[in-house]
Amino acid sequence: DFLNALQEIIPAFGASTDDLERCRLNGIVDCGNRHKHIYQRAMLLVEQVKVSVGSPLLTCLLEGPSGSGKTALAATVGIDSDFPYVKIVSAESMIGLHESTKCAQIVKVFEDAYRSPLSIIILDDIERLLEFVAIGPRFSNLISQTLLSLLKRLPPKGKKLLVLGTTSEVSFLESIGICDGFSVTYHIPKLETKDVKEVLKQLNVFAEDDIDAAAEALNDMPIKKVYMLIEMAAQGEYGGAAEAIYSGKEKIKIAHFYDCLQDMVRF
Amino acid sequence: DFLNALQEIIPAFGASTDDLERCRLNGIVDCGNRHKHIYQRAMLLVEQVKVSVGSPLLTCLLEGPSGSGKTALAATVGIDSDFPYVKIVSAESMIGLHESTKCAQIVKVFEDAYRSPLSIIILDDIERLLEFVAIGPRFSNLISQTLLSLLKRLPPKGKKLLVLGTTSEVSFLESIGICDGFSVTYHIPKLETKDVKEVLKQLNVFAEDDIDAAAEALNDMPIKKVYMLIEMAAQGEYGGAAEAIYSGKEKIKIAHFYDCLQDMVRF
Amino acid sequence: DFLNALQEIIPAFGASTDDLERCRLNGIVDCGNRHKHIYQRAMLLVEQVKVSVGSPLLTCLLEGPSGSGKTALAATVGIDSDFPYVKIVSAESMIGLHESTKCAQIVKVFEDAYRSPLSIIILDDIERLLEFVAIGPRFSNLISQTLLSLLKRLPPKGKKLLVLGTTSEVSFLESIGICDGFSVTYHIPKLETKDVKEVLKQLNVFAEDDIDAAAEALNDMPIKKVYMLIEMAAQGEYGGAAEAIYSGKEKIKIAHFYDCLQDMVRF
Amino acid sequence: DFLNALQEIIPAFGASTDDLERCRLNGIVDCGNRHKHIYQRAMLLVEQVKVSVGSPLLTCLLEGPSGSGKTALAATVGIDSDFPYVKIVSAESMIGLHESTKCAQIVKVFEDAYRSPLSIIILDDIERLLEFVAIGPRFSNLISQTLLSLLKRLPPKGKKLLVLGTTSEVSFLESIGICDGFSVTYHIPKLETKDVKEVLKQLNVFAEDDIDAAAEALNDMPIKKVYMLIEMAAQGEYGGAAEAIYSGKEKIKIAHFYDCLQDMVRF
Amino acid sequence: DFLNALQEIIPAFGASTDDLERCRLNGIVDCGNRHKHIYQRAMLLVEQVKVSVGSPLLTCLLEGPSGSGKTALAATVGIDSDFPYVKIVSAESMIGLHESTKCAQIVKVFEDAYRSPLSIIILDDIERLLEFVAIGPRFSNLISQTLLSLLKRLPPKGKKLLVLGTTSEVSFLESIGICDGFSVTYHIPKLETKDVKEVLKQLNVFAEDDIDAAAEALNDMPIKKVYMLIEMAAQGEYGGAAEAIYSGKEKIKIAHFYDCLQDMVRF
Amino acid sequence: DFLNALQEIIPAFGASTDDLERCRLNGIVDCGNRHKHIYQRAMLLVEQVKVSVGSPLLTCLLEGPSGSGKTALAATVGIDSDFPYVKIVSAESMIGLHESTKCAQIVKVFEDAYRSPLSIIILDDIERLLEFVAIGPRFSNLISQTLLSLLKRLPPKGKKLLVLGTTSEVSFLESIGICDGFSVTYHIPKLETKDVKEVLKQLNVFAEDDIDAAAEALNDMPIKKVYMLIEMAAQGEYGGAAEAIYSGKEKIKIAHFYDCLQDMVRF
Ligand SMILES: Nc1ncnc2c1ncn2[C@@H]1O[C@H](COP(=O)(O)OP(=O)(O)OP(=O)(O)O)[C@@H](O)[C@H]1O
Ligand SMILES: Nc1ncnc2c1ncn2[C@@H]1O[C@H](COP(=O)(O)OP(=O)(O)OP(=O)(O)O)[C@@H](O)[C@H]1O
Ligand SMILES: Nc1ncnc2c1ncn2[C@@H]1O[C@H](COP(=O)(O)OP(=O)(O)OP(=O)(O)O)[C@@H](O)[C@H]1O
Ligand SMILES: Nc1ncnc2c1ncn2[C@@H]1O[C@H](COP(=O)(O)OP(=O)(O)OP(=O)(O)O)[C@@H](O)[C@H]1O
Ligand SMILES: Nc1ncnc2c1ncn2[C@@H]1O[C@H](COP(=O)(O)OP(=O)(O)OP(=O)(O)O)[C@@H](O)[C@H]1O
Ligand SMILES: Nc1ncnc2c1ncn2[C@@H]1O[C@H](COP(=O)(O)OP(=O)(O)OP(=O)(O)O)[C@@H](O)[C@H]1O
Ligand SMILES: [Mg+2]
Ligand SMILES: [Mg+2]
Ligand SMILES: [Mg+2]
Ligand SMILES: [Mg+2]
Ligand SMILES: [Mg+2]
Ligand SMILES: [Mg+2]
Repeated sequence: DFLNALQEIIPAFGASTDDLERCRLNGIVDCGNRHKHIYQRAMLLVEQVKVSVGSPLLTCLLEGPSGSGKTALAATVGIDSDFPYVKIVSAESMIGLHESTKCAQIVKVFEDAYRSPLSIIILDDIERLLEFVAIGPRFSNLISQTLLSLLKRLPPKGKKLLVLGTTSEVSFLESIGICDGFSVTYHIPKLETKDVKEVLKQLNVFAEDDIDAAAEALNDMPIKKVYMLIEMAAQGEYGGAAEAIYSGKEKIKIAHFYDCLQDMVRF
Repeated sequence: DFLNALQEIIPAFGASTDDLERCRLNGIVDCGNRHKHIYQRAMLLVEQVKVSVGSPLLTCLLEGPSGSGKTALAATVGIDSDFPYVKIVSAESMIGLHESTKCAQIVKVFEDAYRSPLSIIILDDIERLLEFVAIGPRFSNLISQTLLSLLKRLPPKGKKLLVLGTTSEVSFLESIGICDGFSVTYHIPKLETKDVKEVLKQLNVFAEDDIDAAAEALNDMPIKKVYMLIEMAAQGEYGGAAEAIYSGKEKIKIAHFYDCLQDMVRF
Repeated sequence: DFLNALQEIIPAFGASTDDLERCRLNGIVDCGNRHKHIYQRAMLLVEQVKVSVGSPLLTCLLEGPSGSGKTALAATVGIDSDFPYVKIVSAESMIGLHESTKCAQIVKVFEDAYRSPLSIIILDDIERLLEFVAIGPRFSNLISQTLLSLLKRLPPKGKKLLVLGTTSEVSFLESIGICDGFSVTYHIPKLETKDVKEVLKQLNVFAEDDIDAAAEALNDMPIKKVYMLIEMAAQGEYGGAAEAIYSGKEKIKIAHFYDCLQDMVRF
Repeated sequence: DFLNALQEIIPAFGASTDDLERCRLNGIVDCGNRHKHIYQRAMLLVEQVKVSVGSPLLTCLLEGPSGSGKTALAATVGIDSDFPYVKIVSAESMIGLHESTKCAQIVKVFEDAYRSPLSIIILDDIERLLEFVAIGPRFSNLISQTLLSLLKRLPPKGKKLLVLGTTSEVSFLESIGICDGFSVTYHIPKLETKDVKEVLKQLNVFAEDDIDAAAEALNDMPIKKVYMLIEMAAQGEYGGAAEAIYSGKEKIKIAHFYDCLQDMVRF
Repeated sequence: DFLNALQEIIPAFGASTDDLERCRLNGIVDCGNRHKHIYQRAMLLVEQVKVSVGSPLLTCLLEGPSGSGKTALAATVGIDSDFPYVKIVSAESMIGLHESTKCAQIVKVFEDAYRSPLSIIILDDIERLLEFVAIGPRFSNLISQTLLSLLKRLPPKGKKLLVLGTTSEVSFLESIGICDGFSVTYHIPKLETKDVKEVLKQLNVFAEDDIDAAAEALNDMPIKKVYMLIEMAAQGEYGGAAEAIYSGKEKIKIAHFYDCLQDMVRF
Repeated sequence: DFLNALQEIIPAFGASTDDLERCRLNGIVDCGNRHKHIYQRAMLLVEQVKVSVGSPLLTCLLEGPSGSGKTALAATVGIDSDFPYVKIVSAESMIGLHESTKCAQIVKVFEDAYRSPLSIIILDDIERLLEFVAIGPRFSNLISQTLLSLLKRLPPKGKKLLVLGTTSEVSFLESIGICDGFSVTYHIPKLETKDVKEVLKQLNVFAEDDIDAAAEALNDMPIKKVYMLIEMAAQGEYGGAAEAIYSGKEKIKIAHFYDCLQDMVRF
């Protein structure tokens, strides 16, 4: 299955960069069929770009709510692709730079990719690369024009490139024409109760009897928030409980877990 | 017919630039009467600019939805014109440049053209040249003023120039007065079922029985997306199928084809 | 009459600049009474500025739809004025310049004019000089303030100046107060059927029987588009017909003419 | 009376600058009681600033429609004041300058004035000084803040200053708080029939019988346009009539006068 | 009472700067209880800042219509405080400076104050410091952020600071959060009939019988306009009357006074 | 209890910076259960970040009305954390700097933190860091993008960071996506009557009989304003009363207290 596939592949490409690994700090667990399907489709694109002659450039957008696992999924595809050039472009490594400098760095990544026969570029959090803010809205048109052109520019003869984008602001990207610039778009969903349940089983921090209730309470939450919440709850009401819980000696108290959940939704 | 005409002419001008050829990576197939008619009219303009005395400058805009074949058509007219100077101006070759630098490069192309007795300039994706983005909308007024003036400025005595523009944002160009700056405008359409059917026959990747259904499903799709979709489907559900299909040994499975189509419309 | 008057005067001032002549590439034909009346009034202003003491500065705006003949008319007045200094200021000669440079060039033209006892300055396509674009709208306020001041600044004692402006965006000019800056404004109209008929007779490219129908079809078209359309039609459906038609051996086929007309209105 | 008062005073101050004289190119005629009243009040302010101790700074705004005589009136007050420092600040002498340079020049005029015991500064066409344009609206806030502060800043001890402003955009000045910055505001009106009649009598270019009709037709016109229109009409329908009319040998033909009037209202 | 209190205190602090004295060019007369109350409260703040330990920074805003006496009141508090550092920050001393230079100057005043054990800073006409203009509205955000931060920044240990602001645009200051930045706000009102009457009695320029009528006519006028109007009226209808009136030999003619009042409200 | 806990802890970390201590100039009194609960939760986050492996970065926003005690609370958590690196980032220390310089300073604080195994960064008054002003609204997108990225960027391996933000403009932060950037958000409330009563008892400046009435009058006031108001009232109606009151010899007169309260709500 999906998870096993991942676990078989990952070690084989342990040489992949640290950067990509840090994008999935909590590892990869089985999150249900919808996540799995998208992973498989993305891996087919990896193959298509390898064999195609008419399409030396393929582009795919992963969109979904904040914390739904987009970056971790893109990083996983990059790691699993076994392509010689896999690079993540992220706003976090360009903090405070002028938009023209950011442009230059992005263009540089593409030009490096053009030198490799097979490349993957991950444009992570495209709205952040674009310096998007909903009021206005404001964003860097210089960068958006650069992306629009890069998403259309063919690599030189004989080179192949797959671009993976991620965003949690898909309607903004739609409105500036960036979605149209991608060949395909996949929606990464939040977790449903049954997905959460599987995740909680794997994590093994709740008493068996509490798992159903906890999973129910976490319905429609993104995977990243699930991890954060469990960690908060694991501290215990007066602190100091985490070690016992992660070592399996104790379980999270469901009442305290509800308390933390309420805090997260907003005190 | 149209296709044959093209095939007869192309070899004769094999000396045309690589740039123009890369604009039609999937070649030129017969896409139906509407595409053919526009090609013929554009070739009449090529002749008119050659013989006219009162109009040393002719301008023609090709507008239509994304992927409908505008760039490939303009490139084909350029190649088939046999003019000594044929140049494509595209945002992709000016990524990240300041608007004033872009202006200077565009003006340079026109001034080079003014030195040749007969020239064609293709202004590809004018909205991209203008750094257009629908929010606002924003665009470079410096470049739009430059284009408005260039579309009106006569070449020096004895020189002739045909300008071909392409755009998928015709209503924007209308609103800033650029459409009015062109002598004629043609609309490049998406494909209707009967057009697609002809294309699919030529490509020969479906079982005979599936062609009608496939063509029906692809009604109202631009030619460029038709190519992309077929290539995706040709990988097969588990990958690895492309070679067999392109070599004609196997056909695309219609069920998998529908799957891919759904992905494209948005998962 | 108007046309004869022109033809008598023009040779006398053959020394007028090439620039002005290039503004009327298709010559000047009789376009009907409305064009004629405006020409005569403009020539009266030429006289007034010569003899006046209280008004050393006169300003006149020619406004009308795109292609209605404004530039050709202004150029003709300039040529016919016999003034020692006649200069056209046009955006086409200032492409890509910064607005402050454009300002400086415009001011320079006025200061040159102030050195001549009698001068005419043609501000051609004022909306283009102002870098106007309807979206926003945007325009250069630096240049508009410059024009507003220049239209009010008196030449030095003993010098006389007539400023002729042209525009196809009169309501915009109105809204920024530039219309008020002109002493008089004339509206240059499109052609009515009876005007077109006269023009077609003079051009002699239609069979006698077709003239009425053609003129009817061209009702409410500007003179410049009439010329463009006739030239397109003169190529013939399959090209190659132009020479025969202009030499008078053949006439334009009315059916093909209708076809071209339809293209122009938008395919 | 008003006119006589003027004529008595003007010679006495013939030393006033040429600049001020050029502001009333058509001289000063009796324009009716409303103009006269404002002139008298403005002359009282001249006296008040001279004798006051509590108000070393007085400010007065003359507002009214374009061409109503504001600049000529302000210039006349300046000439008649007999103050050692009288200076007009006008956009025409600062064409194309950057707003900060304009500011500096305006401040310079005030600082020069602070050195004279008695000064008048005319801020002519304040909306033009502010680079105002109705679309937006746009204007220079740098200059408007400068004026707002200058209108409140006291001259040094022992110095007196009267500031006269003119504008035809009083509602704009109101909206940015500049009107409030002036101690008093006077409205300079257009001419009513009875005012025009007096003016026409003095100019003596119409037949006696036509004066009533002409004055009626010119009701509600500003004095400046009255002058312009009469000069146009004085050329005669075919030109060449001006000399005879100004010398009194002939009179303006009322029919041609109506024609010209119509042109001015817009052909 | 209030006035006497002032008169007793002022001589004692005659060493206060000339700048502050010039802020009350017409001196300080008794303007009624509302003005008096605010003066007293402001003097209590002077004491509070001296003795407090928990609040080394106090801030107080005086807001009210144009000319209501805000600046004169703040200056009086400054003079009467007997603090070693009293400084007025006014737009008039920063005309034409760039907003960043203004910021630097304002910050400089605060840093100078931080060196004195007890300081008062008067931020006069805050909307003018902010380059506020109602259209837009526009204002300098750089300066407004600077003020917002300065109004919150504590002086160094052992130093005390009272900030007095004045404004006639309180709703604007409210909307940008500057009002909230002040600990207390007082509204300086226009004069009511009974206040005006007292003022007129003290000035002694009307015949006894006219005082009631005049005070009635001046109801709801700010103190500053009252002074201006009286001075205008004191010139007399034909000028030259001022001396006789101020010396007490003559009184202002009530009819002429009404005339002037009408001019001020707008002719 | 909460207060005692604080008092036990504070001395232990007396080495904490002066900056943090100045953030609670009036010390920390018991303000009721709601304040206490938030303090405890924040201390749990301090523990979580210490022990967690999956979350080396935790972020927490304290939002609430102006003066509700956010900064004092955050400073207290910082002091009580015993972390080697605790730093407050505040607009007051960056007055007048250009937004890019502010960015650089903020980034510097984070990079310093990345060098310490355990760090707390307090982003105080985030709306002020962002140069927010409600009109427009305007704010620095450069800084907001920087914060958005910093709130997501992981510290290097082995380092832990807790970011505490404070704001009184939570809906603005919401609208630009900054709230979503924080893992948890707590609302710091104004005081209710029963909270105020406790505070007043501790301060001991009212007669016993007046405490209920005073507490009632102060219902729904932020703690910071309570302190300010009491200090104003402590001066007494004619000044000079403060010492007697703080030394306990006299009590605040309730009538004068009501007077002051009215002033604060706006005279
Ligand atoms: N199957 C999975 N797919 C994706 N993420 C997973 C999966 N299993 C576990 N995770 C963990 O869930 C977290 C997903 O966070 P990630 O940053 O990828 O979300 P995101 O959608 O990119 O969030 P954001 O919108 O904030 O960018 C990671 O820590 C990852 O290790
Ligand atoms: N008859 C045809 N006309 C145009 N294109 C054709 C035709 N036959 C095949 N093609 C192929 O279809 C594709 C058309 O893509 P093209 O880039 O020209 O579309 P476009 O309208 O310019 O797209 P975009 O809006 O993205 O710029 C090309 O790959 C071209 O080789
Ligand atoms: N009587 C005429 N008046 C004006 N133009 C004429 C006349 N007769 C023939 N023409 C021709 O018609 C054309 C008019 O074009 P012109 O450029 O002057 O129009 P325009 O109104 O300035 O157009 P645009 O709005 O594009 O600036 C010229 O080629 C000119 O030679
Ligand atoms: N009594 C008068 N008052 C004012 N102007 C007069 C008078 N008599 C004659 N004139 C003439 O009328 C003209 C008034 O024009 P002026 O430029 O002063 O008007 P304006 O209101 O300043 O116009 P604009 O709004 O264009 O600035 C001048 O040429 C002046 O010589
Ligand atoms: N009791 C008083 N309080 C204030 N001003 C007084 C008083 N008595 C007399 N005045 C005089 O009234 C005038 C008040 O003007 P001031 O400039 O202080 O008003 P303002 O409200 O600051 O006006 P603006 O809104 O234009 O800044 C001063 O000339 C001052 O000398
Ligand atoms: N338990 C408490 N919690 C917070 N503040 C307290 C407490 N007890 C007393 N205080 C005092 O109350 C004041 C709270 O002011 P503080 O500046 O923290 O408020 P704030 O919400 O940050 O205000 P602002 O919105 O203006 O930034 C401080 O002077 C602090 O000493
Ligand atoms: Mg992500
Ligand atoms: Mg294209
Ligand atoms: Mg023209
Ligand atoms: Mg004027
Ligand atoms: Mg003031
Ligand atoms: Mg705070």
